[in-house]
Formats: sequence, structure tokens, C-alpha cells
Amino acid sequence: MLKWLKELSRAKSTFSDELYSILGFIPNKIELYHQAFCHSSIEHQKYGNNERLEFLGDAIFNAVITEYLYQKMQQKDEGTLTDFRSKMVSRKTLNLLAKKIKIDKMVRTNLGDKIPSSVYGNAFEALIAAIYLDKGSVFCNKFIIKRIIEPYFSLNELETEISSYKKYFIHWAQKNNNNYSFTLLSETGEAHNKNFEVGLFLKDEIIATAFARSIKKAEEASAKKACQALKI
Amino acid sequence: MLKWLKELSRAKSTFSDELYSILGFIPNKIELYHQAFCHSSIEHQKYGNNERLEFLGDAIFNAVITEYLYQKMQQKDEGTLTDFRSKMVSRKTLNLLAKKIKIDKMVRTNLGDKIPSSVYGNAFEALIAAIYLDKGSVFCNKFIIKRIIEPYFSLNELETEISSYKKYFIHWAQKNNNNYSFTLLSETGEAHNKNFEVGLFLKDEIIATAFARSIKKAEEASAKKACQALKI
Repeated sequence: MLKWLKELSRAKSTFSDELYSILGFIPNKIELYHQAFCHSSIEHQKYGNNERLEFLGDAIFNAVITEYLYQKMQQKDEGTLTDFRSKMVSRKTLNLLAKKIKIDKMVRTNLGDKIPSSVYGNAFEALIAAIYLDKGSVFCNKFIIKRIIEPYFSLNELETEISSYKKYFIHWAQKNNNNYSFTLLSETGEAHNKNFEVGLFLKDEIIATAFARSIKKAEEASAKKACQALKI
Repeated sequence: MLKWLKELSRAKSTFSDELYSILGFIPNKIELYHQAFCHSSIEHQKYGNNERLEFLGDAIFNAVITEYLYQKMQQKDEGTLTDFRSKMVSRKTLNLLAKKIKIDKMVRTNLGDKIPSSVYGNAFEALIAAIYLDKGSVFCNKFIIKRIIEPYFSLNELETEISSYKKYFIHWAQKNNNNYSFTLLSETGEAHNKNFEVGLFLKDEIIATAFARSIKKAEEASAKKACQALKI
């Protein structure tokens, strides 16, 4: 009995220790964190699986990132802010973040060795919800900014990544199986002072047009307009 | 000069009065509310247009609705919570809400008489952000719950609306221009004890299967699985 109690206490302290090294604070409601790391493939879960927490954490993380960008980038329009946010809250980013803050070792599943990355990204979202429910919104916001955004995101680097709206639009259109084309609509002016008008067609309907001094620039400008209009 | 000042003061007080009747509180930073109601079609905007506020308000509203559902519906899984949220934060719902709380009269545009409903829904989101920035998150959360969710949403009615996953899935597939089909894969058992297996195909790939005692029930179950797997 004593041995069993000792083992239990050791197991508990290991979980708490690992958690502390990830979070940097001592949690109050430890059961929320057990739940956050428990994948639905595990049967007979003592604290339930992490799917409801993931639902909540996703929205909280999204809102904190949104406010952060709103405050930090006062000169940027909402189309640009949307681009930044898309990158920061994408599934790919969340899956990577989970590994960076080392919660992949904490996640329990019944999937054997082949665990999809999304399991970790989902556990990351669930962890955010656990912190929110355990410590409140002000604490959780600060955690996201100080322990996630500031160490792992660079707004300058993100800006470079999303600088091509054309690339971004094409990626979206292909993902959603939509036909599109960039078409030169007109070409005016003298040789040294040309003006090109490009139309962007989505499923045979024109959704944006733009003028510029080169076809490439007009394509980029029309893609930007389309991304903003379609809120993608 | 005196006349002009009087008119200005009357115009100001009218805006504040109308705002008070909508909000039920006296705002501190009135310029945020002017901005929230200013559509991008207006040139030379004194306080800027509402697009950045809309970006922020959308995320805040989404997070508050998410937490509300998480807390109120403790027995529901995340698939069901997602269905509820989708209804509550849809463009259609936001456009309607804007008219219900009477902000349509406050919105200023340069679009003439033909104002799309989305202009009002967007102003609603911008208003949420204005309240958040003016009064803080606790106040804003309370506003959304007491002045928006409780008067205008009934969880019971919503449950009836989203009870058909098949309908919901079909609506999603059509909106995204995706081919789908429900196909009977097998039929086993005696006449009085039949078991039907239905497969749901999306773009010729099977994405969910389900067994049930009737084809209708198996279709519904496969649609539910697909909605959850695709997070729609």
C-alpha cells in the first residue's frame, strides 16, 4: 500500500514537474491539464478527452492573436491583419508550436506510433483553454503573448511570407477546388509608359480587376483585392 | 458661429442619445463608436472606417459565444457546440442582429439606397470591438451575454434548427461547390431486423460510413461523422 502510494505520488509529481517546465507557473486545477492532454482515442478517461477544451481554446487563441495584431500593427489594414492571423493560427503553425513548447511528450493517445501532427496542435489549443479556465482571461492572455507569441513569432518574418497575394490566392483556390485565371484585359500607353489591366476570374466570373505598370504587379493587385473581398 | 456650435452640439447629443438607447450605458471614447458605424465607402473619414474594428470584433464575439456555449452546454460534444456556434456567428445572423438592436440607422455609408445587409453585420462586429476597447473585456463579455445572447438567442430553438446533419452537410457541400453522394453500401439482416450501411462520398472519395436500422438514419449518422471530421 505504501509502495503504491509512493508510486502514485511520483507519477503525480512527474506530471506536475513537466507541466511546470512548460508553463512556467503552478496550475491550480491540475485535472484540466490532464484532460487537455488526453486524446479521444483513449477509453475510460478519468477527466474526459480534450475535444471540448480544444473547441474553447481555439477561439481564445484566435481572439488573443487578433487583438495582438490589432494593437501592434496600427497602420495595417484589416486585409493584411487577416493574412498575418491566418498564418499564426493555421493548423500547421499550431502543430509546430505544440512541439516547440514540448507538449508532444505530454499527450496521451491510443494511436500507437503513428500519431498525426494535428493531435498535438489540438492538444495545444486544449492547453490554452485549460489555462483560461484555471487562471482566468487576463492571465491566459499574458501567457499567450509572453510564452507563445513573443518567443515564437516574428512579425517581420511573417510579413515576408505573406507578401505574395497571388500565391496565397492560388493556394486557396486549389485547396477549395475552384477554377481561376488571371487574364490580361487591356494594355494601354506608350512603350515606356505601359499600363496593364488584369482581371481575376473565379469559376468564370470576374471577381477583381487591377491596373499596374507590369502584368505581374497587376496580377498581384487583383489577387489582393480578391483576397480582401472574399475574406480569405 | 453660435448657431453652428448649437447645431454641432445637437448633432453630437443625438448621436450619444441614440447610442445610449442601443447600448444601455454611456460610452467614454465616443470616437470609437463613430468609427464603428463608418463604412469604407465614405471618403475623408474623421475617425477612420470600421474595417479594422470589424476584424477585432469578429474574433471577440466568436470567443464570447464559444465560452458561453462551452459553459452552458456541459453535456454536449464539441461537434454539437460547433454547430451551435456556426449558427450564432453566421453572416446571416450578424446582419439580422444589427437590425434587431437597431444599429442600421446609425451606419453611415456612401452607397445610396442599396446597402447590402453585410454592411450592417460588419458594423455590428465593429461595435463589439468599440465596446471592448472602450470598456474592457469583462464589460464587453457581459454586454454580449446580457444584451445580445440572452435576448436574441434560444438554445432550444437553435437545437431544432441544426438537428439535421444531412441538411447541414448538403448545404456546406453546395456552398463550396463540392460533389457529394450518399450511397447504400450494404443491406444485411432479416426483413424485420435490417441493417443498412451508408457511405458518404465527397468528390468521389468516401469520407464517412455509418450503420443504422434505416437508410435515412444511416445517412444522418454518416453526415454527422463527416461534419465532425471536416470540422464544418
